[in-house]
Amino acid sequence: MAFAWMSRLLGRDQSQLQKAIELSKRLVSGAGETGGTIVAQELANCTAALNDEELFQYFRWLVDDMAPDQPVLLVAAQAYVSEPSTLNAARLTEAAEPRRQELLRRLNTAPGGTARIVALRGKLLTLLKAHPELKPLDIDMKHLLASWFNRGFLELRRVDWNTPAAILEKLIVYEAVHAIDGWDDLRGRLAADRRCYGFFHPALPGEPLIFVEVALTNRISDAIAPLLDHPPAGREASPETTAIFYSISNCQPGLRGIGFGNFLIKQITQNLRAETPSLRVFATLSPVPGFRRWLDAGGQQLGTGLARLCAMYLSGVQADGTPGPSRDPVANFHLSNGARLDRINEGADLSAKGQAESCGVMVNYRYVATAIEENHMAFVERGEVRVSPAVARLLRSSTIEP
Amino acid sequence: MAFAWMSRLLGRDQSQLQKAIELSKRLVSGAGETGGTIVAQELANCTAALNDEELFQYFRWLVDDMAPDQPVLLVAAQAYVSEPSTLNAARLTEAAEPRRQELLRRLNTAPGGTARIVALRGKLLTLLKAHPELKPLDIDMKHLLASWFNRGFLELRRVDWNTPAAILEKLIVYEAVHAIDGWDDLRGRLAADRRCYGFFHPALPGEPLIFVEVALTNRISDAIAPLLDHPPAGREASPETTAIFYSISNCQPGLRGIGFGNFLIKQITQNLRAETPSLRVFATLSPVPGFRRWLDAGGQQLGTGLARLCAMYLSGVQADGTPGPSRDPVANFHLSNGARLDRINEGADLSAKGQAESCGVMVNYRYVATAIEENHMAFVERGEVRVSPAVARLLRSSTIEP
Amino acid sequence: MAFAWMSRLLGRDQSQLQKAIELSKRLVSGAGETGGTIVAQELANCTAALNDEELFQYFRWLVDDMAPDQPVLLVAAQAYVSEPSTLNAARLTEAAEPRRQELLRRLNTAPGGTARIVALRGKLLTLLKAHPELKPLDIDMKHLLASWFNRGFLELRRVDWNTPAAILEKLIVYEAVHAIDGWDDLRGRLAADRRCYGFFHPALPGEPLIFVEVALTNRISDAIAPLLDHPPAGREASPETTAIFYSISNCQPGLRGIGFGNFLIKQITQNLRAETPSLRVFATLSPVPGFRRWLDAGGQQLGTGLARLCAMYLSGVQADGTPGPSRDPVANFHLSNGARLDRINEGADLSAKGQAESCGVMVNYRYVATAIEENHMAFVERGEVRVSPAVARLLRSSTIEP
Amino acid sequence: MAFAWMSRLLGRDQSQLQKAIELSKRLVSGAGETGGTIVAQELANCTAALNDEELFQYFRWLVDDMAPDQPVLLVAAQAYVSEPSTLNAARLTEAAEPRRQELLRRLNTAPGGTARIVALRGKLLTLLKAHPELKPLDIDMKHLLASWFNRGFLELRRVDWNTPAAILEKLIVYEAVHAIDGWDDLRGRLAADRRCYGFFHPALPGEPLIFVEVALTNRISDAIAPLLDHPPAGREASPETTAIFYSISNCQPGLRGIGFGNFLIKQITQNLRAETPSLRVFATLSPVPGFRRWLDAGGQQLGTGLARLCAMYLSGVQADGTPGPSRDPVANFHLSNGARLDRINEGADLSAKGQAESCGVMVNYRYVATAIEENHMAFVERGEVRVSPAVARLLRSSTIEP
Repeated sequence: MAFAWMSRLLGRDQSQLQKAIELSKRLVSGAGETGGTIVAQELANCTAALNDEELFQYFRWLVDDMAPDQPVLLVAAQAYVSEPSTLNAARLTEAAEPRRQELLRRLNTAPGGTARIVALRGKLLTLLKAHPELKPLDIDMKHLLASWFNRGFLELRRVDWNTPAAILEKLIVYEAVHAIDGWDDLRGRLAADRRCYGFFHPALPGEPLIFVEVALTNRISDAIAPLLDHPPAGREASPETTAIFYSISNCQPGLRGIGFGNFLIKQITQNLRAETPSLRVFATLSPVPGFRRWLDAGGQQLGTGLARLCAMYLSGVQADGTPGPSRDPVANFHLSNGARLDRINEGADLSAKGQAESCGVMVNYRYVATAIEENHMAFVERGEVRVSPAVARLLRSSTIEP
Repeated sequence: MAFAWMSRLLGRDQSQLQKAIELSKRLVSGAGETGGTIVAQELANCTAALNDEELFQYFRWLVDDMAPDQPVLLVAAQAYVSEPSTLNAARLTEAAEPRRQELLRRLNTAPGGTARIVALRGKLLTLLKAHPELKPLDIDMKHLLASWFNRGFLELRRVDWNTPAAILEKLIVYEAVHAIDGWDDLRGRLAADRRCYGFFHPALPGEPLIFVEVALTNRISDAIAPLLDHPPAGREASPETTAIFYSISNCQPGLRGIGFGNFLIKQITQNLRAETPSLRVFATLSPVPGFRRWLDAGGQQLGTGLARLCAMYLSGVQADGTPGPSRDPVANFHLSNGARLDRINEGADLSAKGQAESCGVMVNYRYVATAIEENHMAFVERGEVRVSPAVARLLRSSTIEP
Repeated sequence: MAFAWMSRLLGRDQSQLQKAIELSKRLVSGAGETGGTIVAQELANCTAALNDEELFQYFRWLVDDMAPDQPVLLVAAQAYVSEPSTLNAARLTEAAEPRRQELLRRLNTAPGGTARIVALRGKLLTLLKAHPELKPLDIDMKHLLASWFNRGFLELRRVDWNTPAAILEKLIVYEAVHAIDGWDDLRGRLAADRRCYGFFHPALPGEPLIFVEVALTNRISDAIAPLLDHPPAGREASPETTAIFYSISNCQPGLRGIGFGNFLIKQITQNLRAETPSLRVFATLSPVPGFRRWLDAGGQQLGTGLARLCAMYLSGVQADGTPGPSRDPVANFHLSNGARLDRINEGADLSAKGQAESCGVMVNYRYVATAIEENHMAFVERGEVRVSPAVARLLRSSTIEP
Repeated sequence: MAFAWMSRLLGRDQSQLQKAIELSKRLVSGAGETGGTIVAQELANCTAALNDEELFQYFRWLVDDMAPDQPVLLVAAQAYVSEPSTLNAARLTEAAEPRRQELLRRLNTAPGGTARIVALRGKLLTLLKAHPELKPLDIDMKHLLASWFNRGFLELRRVDWNTPAAILEKLIVYEAVHAIDGWDDLRGRLAADRRCYGFFHPALPGEPLIFVEVALTNRISDAIAPLLDHPPAGREASPETTAIFYSISNCQPGLRGIGFGNFLIKQITQNLRAETPSLRVFATLSPVPGFRRWLDAGGQQLGTGLARLCAMYLSGVQADGTPGPSRDPVANFHLSNGARLDRINEGADLSAKGQAESCGVMVNYRYVATAIEENHMAFVERGEVRVSPAVARLLRSSTIEP
């Protein structure tokens, strides 16, 4: 029985969890209830006060007891099986929506409700590995969040030294690629020849969802350290021709998998072009986080030369020399967004992390406006990785000869 | 066959419709496609250019061809019928989502996409009466819009003479209860002793979704004309004690049935109280739009006296004297929001519309903070209409004696 | 004795005036007084309540009793006369500042103080003609206002249909050149092919100081009626190449003579160019308000042909054929701003006012970026009016031959 | 001859200085010149590039050559001496205005002109001590700045963690009383139980003019260290009843002597009261920066006990026991603003600076709303220092007995 596990709970735990469940029931059942927002607010506060064990039990309750109504769904499914008409499909769609979706929509009406739901999903994701039975809840949460954080509702904003400190400090916390070492370091990242953009949602006004750091330079960077220096060693006064995307960080663990990144890079490229017409080249300086693992798993035996091996890894060449899908998450992201693999830089990231994961290699993915669509299609539909002539030469030289 | 009807179409029509369908297919099938926003933008423009007949055909296509995938849904339904487990329910939920929902979510990524979808639903609603087969599409549109226009995403804003003219002119257009006769009349509605509030959504920045007009007075108004006069005949300088909600207008036909009204009145009451602490009484001056129809349909035979008959109509007294659900949409709105039926005013609206629909009667619904919850529950759960002592006396006097 | 005239005043008059004078004395004498703002606020309210006669008396008191301290000034003047050193000059400067300047600065600290002072000067200007003895007060007021409304403190803002109605209605009131006939007319003036800009001051946030109306067309307009039509008869969809400044209105009578107009036109030209790069030509369509008077005063005898006479009038040709300073205020404004006299259009303004003042003639002044500086210098330093070849021909043909 | 000293200058110096002088002449002489703003902009840039010696020479030129026109002033002075009429006074006022005032007003029209003038005065003040002959220039600059930074033009803004970092970093730089040790320290100063307010001017949008730091507590603080700790040792959750103003810092050296501080404290008190109605007590925790110097200069001989001596020092008791004006700048500020001397706290500031200047003593000045006016008048008009009963007792006990 669904509530069986609840008997194990005692004292405060039980009552807090019980309260969350009672409020949830009340919230989901009240038909347009006047007090809806008040109950939603109470439930929001209550879930925020649950400890990890209680939260796990609450999530289980959502999975088990806030599923679609079983008898109703059964009838609708049987009706559709007997007669798969448009009308029966529509009825089945309705019956198949888990009640927890409506519950979450009502929870969202509380002040701060959206932030609460994002936080709940963050917790859920940490539990999911050990508790795959919570997956149905994640499907619903992700479904709702993807709908609410639809690109049409997001706002791209420039982040600079005039941005509120409350937002800036989040960059320090959330920077996932090249750690920001305090406020002075942050200030360097927002200097005159740097750009930073973030996506924001109206319901999370002070929270960046994702942000991108860009350096304006006059050539495609081949190492990360000079970009992180401040004041930059020999920063050029010459006209800026090149935008280097050197860091992309997701900020909200609870929005994992929602994916606004492709729109972000495309839109930033447009903004940069409008703002700084001298810019001609748009490229990344990216890590290769799966490289070391791939080498250790056998890649090493495919030949010699770090750059050659990396080109093979990223272009997805198989052990037998035939092309295959890229295995690197960063590569997948940029290649599916229409970039080409432009250059492989050895010794480009000498940090501990860079050495440990990427063997010090960093890669430039380049976005050429006229080729984006075609590169994207080639990669998505046929798994082909578009590369620059230089990388092509590297790959030819690396063809495995038995 | 679903496309059979398309063969009837010729020339431009066919190609425009064809284009909308092709773009829709492309949009819904592209997996995270780089060009997503561009295709969405093209589809938005294309649907805006469809004429009524084309739109109808496009809607039919959405109903027929953008339904859930039939074989997939059949398998999922059968699996659930054989074993109604949590997992099978989750799979069925996924399979049961019509593909048009994803299509609409992607259309929403276009600049102005949300406005486009609201406009499409507006058109759909006008077609729905004659074409009930389009209902499944309306279910999906309403479902998505209800999720996107969740109260948590709406912003309540005061509208006054400092509001942009582009928004103010919409009040003139949208005012549904007591028509606004041009800018001078509008200005009177926004005078120092008036308040106007609207709900706005971030994706429709210049568009009120619904707005409420309030007059601050020192007694519960018993007629509409003095409220619409400007400058008001003998407007009192005495401290304002009473807020009269005299007009509530929905602005977006495409959002019909989404329902933000109950939260709106509650929140406006809070805002008014904070802003003008002298306010003690919150009441409406409302039309009774179904009264004349009810009289003509037999209500007239229940007794004499316009006020008595109206009290009977609104309190839902049946022909046999027993209570029943109220049949008036305005009454339903306020009673389910927790108001009580406070007073019935004969000769309160002498306009043509007021005479034609409400026989000149207007009603005060009163919101007493401490009783809202209880009134609401009584009405929603037991169909009981709470009334003032005065209305109670009226009703007692009207008990039908054979 | 300075207060002699006060004995004539009686009853409320005396007490209101007396109160204003007492508050003024208190305000100007309190050294950094804590209550400064409160006294300033009271004085602001008090002066707003004075009737015209009281105000006149108050102004006289400011002239007579808030002048520089006579004995102190006498000593300082004598010291400077005996020894005109830098130090004595500085002391004399200090002694020569009328105490009313400090009074006005302190009045300005009241909430709404700046608006109050602007209003007071507006009243003063209406009294000045009949009462030239108030001139010293106007000198001080103008001096202070010119300092406070320094170009460095003004903000140029685009005014359009998204501007608050409270500002837009002021355009209707203040339009001084071509009256705006209500909100529909105003909307036409703010249509897609129109621009409107205003200067604003932070202390008068909802008050335009001056505004300029511009039509974007594809040729230099030769008549006003088509510009005022809406929807415009045959408005062109062709690319806009020409900006026609067709109306410039000062809004604040109390700021007469402060003069922000030259900066305004220059800056609007820059804004327009940045916003609509297709614009190549910047010209006015201006009335010739002194033309009829000039004709009646003898100009008529200088020749025939309305256009020729107008060219003579505007270029300042003397009765004997020699050039002289232009006598037209609008001409002076544009010529001193660096425009050239470009074309004379007969029958361009058939309104009653246009006929009465300008004999129906309107003129294009043209701003050619590369010639502005030189035109300006020629006019300001040598009284030379720069004209187009066409106007030059007209003038040659009009040389008076005895 | 005024330019004599210029012959000493050579090379770049001469040309830069020469350029500043030429631009100044051109700017002040151009009558409403079209290019005014451009010349002003050039002059602004040029003065920013002058080195200290050049700047000094430029200032001397402003004093000597931009004084009132000597012959004109002489005539006006003589006329007034012969006949001191209102009209002659007005003429003398006009003639006595140094031409540099108009020059500065025109410089102000440049973008960033106001900031430039404030910076110039900052430099001037550093030169003034060694070069008292520059005083006439400072009189004019201070005169203009006091007019422009009139309270009516200033905006009081709350500063908190949502304020742009570009403003917050200025707090770190400008904090003059208790140094802020980096961003973490700053964050503590802006915690939930702290308030910070600044005055801003529209022409210096990102620059606080002065700011005040406030701690909300439940008693009048007697030591600074606990207020600067973060997280505060034992910060109370109990309702906040007391606002402690513990730091007031002027930010713009170039605005020294302009004085917005009294309005600031009064207005902050009002804001705090409105925002946190539980606040009842408003007091400072202030240093006594002149105490040590006074002790060393003989104060020490007046008795024993640090608190007693400090009470004597602050209340202005003379060596012979009679009252006199307070000699402490901080005391003068608060007492003239209507505060009373409330309590003297020994060992309240153990920092090096606190020990060196104030012998570790800190003082509470208390603002009692109903007594502010009277305290202020007593101090300003009669030099009386209002004290609490406790300080009165301390003073009685310290009466010097020979």
